[in-house]
Amino acid sequence: MSQKENSSNISTLLRKIKSKPLDRELGFGRNVTLDGRLMNPDGSFNVFREPIGRWDNTYYHLVTMPWRHFFLLIFSFFLLLNVLFSGLYLLIGVEHFNGVTLGSPGHNFMQAFFFSSQTLTTVGYGHISPNGLVISLLASFESFLGLLAFALMTGLLYGRFSRPAAKIVFSEKLLISPYKVGKGLMFRMGNASKSELIETEVQVLMAYNQREEDGSLSRKFYPLGLEINKISFFSLSWTIVHPLDENSPIFNFSEQDILDANAEIMVLVKGTDETAQQLVHARRSYSGEEIVWNARFSPVIERAPNGVPRVLTRRIGEHELLSIESV
Amino acid sequence: MSQKENSSNISTLLRKIKSKPLDRELGFGRNVTLDGRLMNPDGSFNVFREPIGRWDNTYYHLVTMPWRHFFLLIFSFFLLLNVLFSGLYLLIGVEHFNGVTLGSPGHNFMQAFFFSSQTLTTVGYGHISPNGLVISLLASFESFLGLLAFALMTGLLYGRFSRPAAKIVFSEKLLISPYKVGKGLMFRMGNASKSELIETEVQVLMAYNQREEDGSLSRKFYPLGLEINKISFFSLSWTIVHPLDENSPIFNFSEQDILDANAEIMVLVKGTDETAQQLVHARRSYSGEEIVWNARFSPVIERAPNGVPRVLTRRIGEHELLSIESV
Amino acid sequence: MSQKENSSNISTLLRKIKSKPLDRELGFGRNVTLDGRLMNPDGSFNVFREPIGRWDNTYYHLVTMPWRHFFLLIFSFFLLLNVLFSGLYLLIGVEHFNGVTLGSPGHNFMQAFFFSSQTLTTVGYGHISPNGLVISLLASFESFLGLLAFALMTGLLYGRFSRPAAKIVFSEKLLISPYKVGKGLMFRMGNASKSELIETEVQVLMAYNQREEDGSLSRKFYPLGLEINKISFFSLSWTIVHPLDENSPIFNFSEQDILDANAEIMVLVKGTDETAQQLVHARRSYSGEEIVWNARFSPVIERAPNGVPRVLTRRIGEHELLSIESV
Amino acid sequence: MSQKENSSNISTLLRKIKSKPLDRELGFGRNVTLDGRLMNPDGSFNVFREPIGRWDNTYYHLVTMPWRHFFLLIFSFFLLLNVLFSGLYLLIGVEHFNGVTLGSPGHNFMQAFFFSSQTLTTVGYGHISPNGLVISLLASFESFLGLLAFALMTGLLYGRFSRPAAKIVFSEKLLISPYKVGKGLMFRMGNASKSELIETEVQVLMAYNQREEDGSLSRKFYPLGLEINKISFFSLSWTIVHPLDENSPIFNFSEQDILDANAEIMVLVKGTDETAQQLVHARRSYSGEEIVWNARFSPVIERAPNGVPRVLTRRIGEHELLSIESV
Repeated sequence: MSQKENSSNISTLLRKIKSKPLDRELGFGRNVTLDGRLMNPDGSFNVFREPIGRWDNTYYHLVTMPWRHFFLLIFSFFLLLNVLFSGLYLLIGVEHFNGVTLGSPGHNFMQAFFFSSQTLTTVGYGHISPNGLVISLLASFESFLGLLAFALMTGLLYGRFSRPAAKIVFSEKLLISPYKVGKGLMFRMGNASKSELIETEVQVLMAYNQREEDGSLSRKFYPLGLEINKISFFSLSWTIVHPLDENSPIFNFSEQDILDANAEIMVLVKGTDETAQQLVHARRSYSGEEIVWNARFSPVIERAPNGVPRVLTRRIGEHELLSIESV
Repeated sequence: MSQKENSSNISTLLRKIKSKPLDRELGFGRNVTLDGRLMNPDGSFNVFREPIGRWDNTYYHLVTMPWRHFFLLIFSFFLLLNVLFSGLYLLIGVEHFNGVTLGSPGHNFMQAFFFSSQTLTTVGYGHISPNGLVISLLASFESFLGLLAFALMTGLLYGRFSRPAAKIVFSEKLLISPYKVGKGLMFRMGNASKSELIETEVQVLMAYNQREEDGSLSRKFYPLGLEINKISFFSLSWTIVHPLDENSPIFNFSEQDILDANAEIMVLVKGTDETAQQLVHARRSYSGEEIVWNARFSPVIERAPNGVPRVLTRRIGEHELLSIESV
Repeated sequence: MSQKENSSNISTLLRKIKSKPLDRELGFGRNVTLDGRLMNPDGSFNVFREPIGRWDNTYYHLVTMPWRHFFLLIFSFFLLLNVLFSGLYLLIGVEHFNGVTLGSPGHNFMQAFFFSSQTLTTVGYGHISPNGLVISLLASFESFLGLLAFALMTGLLYGRFSRPAAKIVFSEKLLISPYKVGKGLMFRMGNASKSELIETEVQVLMAYNQREEDGSLSRKFYPLGLEINKISFFSLSWTIVHPLDENSPIFNFSEQDILDANAEIMVLVKGTDETAQQLVHARRSYSGEEIVWNARFSPVIERAPNGVPRVLTRRIGEHELLSIESV
Repeated sequence: MSQKENSSNISTLLRKIKSKPLDRELGFGRNVTLDGRLMNPDGSFNVFREPIGRWDNTYYHLVTMPWRHFFLLIFSFFLLLNVLFSGLYLLIGVEHFNGVTLGSPGHNFMQAFFFSSQTLTTVGYGHISPNGLVISLLASFESFLGLLAFALMTGLLYGRFSRPAAKIVFSEKLLISPYKVGKGLMFRMGNASKSELIETEVQVLMAYNQREEDGSLSRKFYPLGLEINKISFFSLSWTIVHPLDENSPIFNFSEQDILDANAEIMVLVKGTDETAQQLVHARRSYSGEEIVWNARFSPVIERAPNGVPRVLTRRIGEHELLSIESV
């Protein structure tokens, strides 16, 4: 790996840094990868956790999967249950239904299928009805299952609705921009939700490889100090600034230094969603390659014709490169 | 804009003020309007946020729209689905129904419509029933959709019920009233909910235009200090007082000064609703025009015949003007 | 009122007290009653709040009313809706039903009623079915209303289930018991819920009438200092002790002094219910008459035959009177 | 009890300990057992709380029972209700049903049972339908009950889904391992949930019998200081370390000392589940017998073939014994 060879010169840099690394406070083991990301760009952790029980993560998956998949899944489940019960009715014999004209196996199966679906959804027109002990018991059980499945579906739907989520858009890049008399590492967030986000707080962590006294490489985590890390309302957009002064763990790092150290910048946002009145979190991870040096974010708030300020969340990442002299 | 011309004399006033403005802590960009309100009188922000996805704000709208609109919407949705499926049944042919007498197109449509509504609601009397493969499959799918739509409706209804909301009434005006040896800026809130509001906290912010050293106008935000900003229980009414002493950012402002500065006073309330045990927020915004000088709130708590104190929330804003000498 | 005459000697006592009253921090107006209780014994506030909108408190009532009333209410609502629609069907004419034999008005009404109930619950046997445009439309609308009412009922039931509530039993009396070298004002709480109560915190306030410098009576609120006011787990029982030392606002008060001052002791408990993981609150109010002087709580925790300690919540208030000398 | 005789030598040890016991802060009475555990190994408290009302703990049980039991219970309830109503229909007389052929009592019961189940689930085919006042009224009531029962079931299912729970696995043993220049008492936890656990915090308490000045035994609670007690993310695994230095209440205790003192180590974990955005708790209790002296945890995090680190939650407790010299 290239960063192993190149990072010896970083260790020299690091001795001058005032800020201290976090001491194993992140809940990852010591085997943390030197060459991989801890966090995926979308903020999910790049780890795998072995579940204990078979059903342990079922609810998690059902509640977090995309809506399209969810609807497809429950429709498939509805079809599957219907086919299963149709098969059972066929086994018992379609002649035990009132209102069914016997015919080809396909015809019989469809009759059983229609009866099953009318039972499962409790629509029960009654032009087909069970006639006989076993088939009536099975139909009775199927309608009970129908109610149960429907109650589960209602619960899942509400679970999905009410899942608190911050709809925050992040700029795709981190910028190194002029800031006060020096420079700052900046990214921008926009609020894309109708709901207000109250008491929003941001924490930024940086991970990079550092050469130890004994020459081995180890991955260290540094908190990055921010100009402002909390705002009362996150109403439109917010540019978060880490001043690149002598307190920064990457003070005086060159573009190459950051690439060599295999840096990862992790952003953790938390706030209170006003509509749900619940704490929500958002995360984003940037790699060293996603830093644009010497650029500035373009304006993202404009006045609508009716005078109301509005944020163009789709253009949250727009920036312009600056000429060398401006830095 | 008139405030631009008149506010030069304000900048002189402002140099004498001890309190310091908030430094961009509000999550609005730098383009914040000089002449518009940040907050509407009802406490919603006067901003527009571009959504990212098409469905992003659907749940928000469905949960926050007035009940009347909500019921109208779901009834329309029920009608629309019925009409849609009626059309499909007509296309397949009403002759595939048992129990239907063919007639005029209008008659046929109504038969299809009744079958559809009996399927969607799963009432399924059965005097009309599907007869044929395609129409039976369609009816089966419609009854599944009916269950799904109903599960969605249940979830939305609960989402609406359980949405935490503070039912706080605010006085329509801010008063400048006698307070201790000087004056105070006051407003009054009443609790109109059956549920107790615990550990209620109030924050008041003021925004106004201020002339910078370079002569340009910029909008600054000041926190207004309060006599008491937290109470254990917000049981009946509460008069919130900002003492107009030398610590106030508007100390010595005249009525005209405040109008010229295009002032906006924003009230942020938070507390815990005891029934839902959830944090709730309320907001209110007042413009400079909504300040009544030299007035006093009328009593709003009275004893019911049974001796129980009660708050007249409808009269929370009642006040009387004072003669000049009393201030 | 007797306490007005007798409380002049209290004002002398009060001058010796070190603790300071709370300054209007309770959210009651200045008109707070001198002779009434602020809190009912069950912890609800003895106040009335005028609602703003007509439906404002409907959800609150539906969620907090006793289960018996709730079931009665929804059953009555079901009957009412049925009777209403039965009337409408009668108006249109029962002859528009298939499967109905006409008869006496009573007979006709019952037929309409059964059809209505089969429609509202979507059971739809179909032995009675609508025949005609108007009656079919009305039945379609009724089945829609049925689904809606049922969705509302589901939401309300879940709202009732999930309402966080601390199941805490309080001793019926406050005791003045020997405590360390002096005396203490004590009450006892027991946890009667299966769920653990975590990080439980208690606050005790006392209100009593105090004569001002100008001779007028006013009601003051004092916090009562507690030996321990927070525990990690409220697992079985907890005796809360206010030491009656020189820091107590009622140090040296006699039994008569407390009665004369029309004292009220308010207990506010909060903790986290572990099953729901929600903050829950409980309150209790004691009047001066509910103080038992010179008594001690009887043991309330015993070992079950299997060695498990258990709390006898029904006997949480049991105490024994002590002979004079023991105090 | 053996620990009573052997613990006199412990009291000598204890005089040298710097840390102070917790003073009744745990919410257990004074009768706390000297020989029993306060907490079961799974973290539930080893206590019994007498409920007040008959239905008080019903919701708690329905929401916390295993899924298998829950499904069995509601199915039994469905059967029971059906049998009950079948009996009532039999009493009124099956001849009041349309579409029923009379026969043996068993046959008649089954016809009543099928009608009942079709009514309760609102499937209502209609091949059997009520004919007569009393039986129609009863069927109407049953369908209402069916809807109610189903609404309850929906509420319970959602209550079960949404119950916040930390899926944390604990090592089965506590280890005494080499730590820095001395030793540490350690256990290991793994996160087995798909959901992230944020701001996870651990508290460890130790209870043991201690001989008082007067020779009597009493059970004391000591907090155990931890190397790190809070992490930002509990992503994979976490080894919690209590350094056995002079600040430890069990500094210099031998294996026998701990057994004699009948020690119990209680672990309390709390964190925020990211998917539900709710606080969750987990607990674990270890007895003195569950301490392994001079051992070290085996690695539990490995790299998957795709480079992603993963935690083997099933092997969270794996450890290896160390040779004597290593400690």
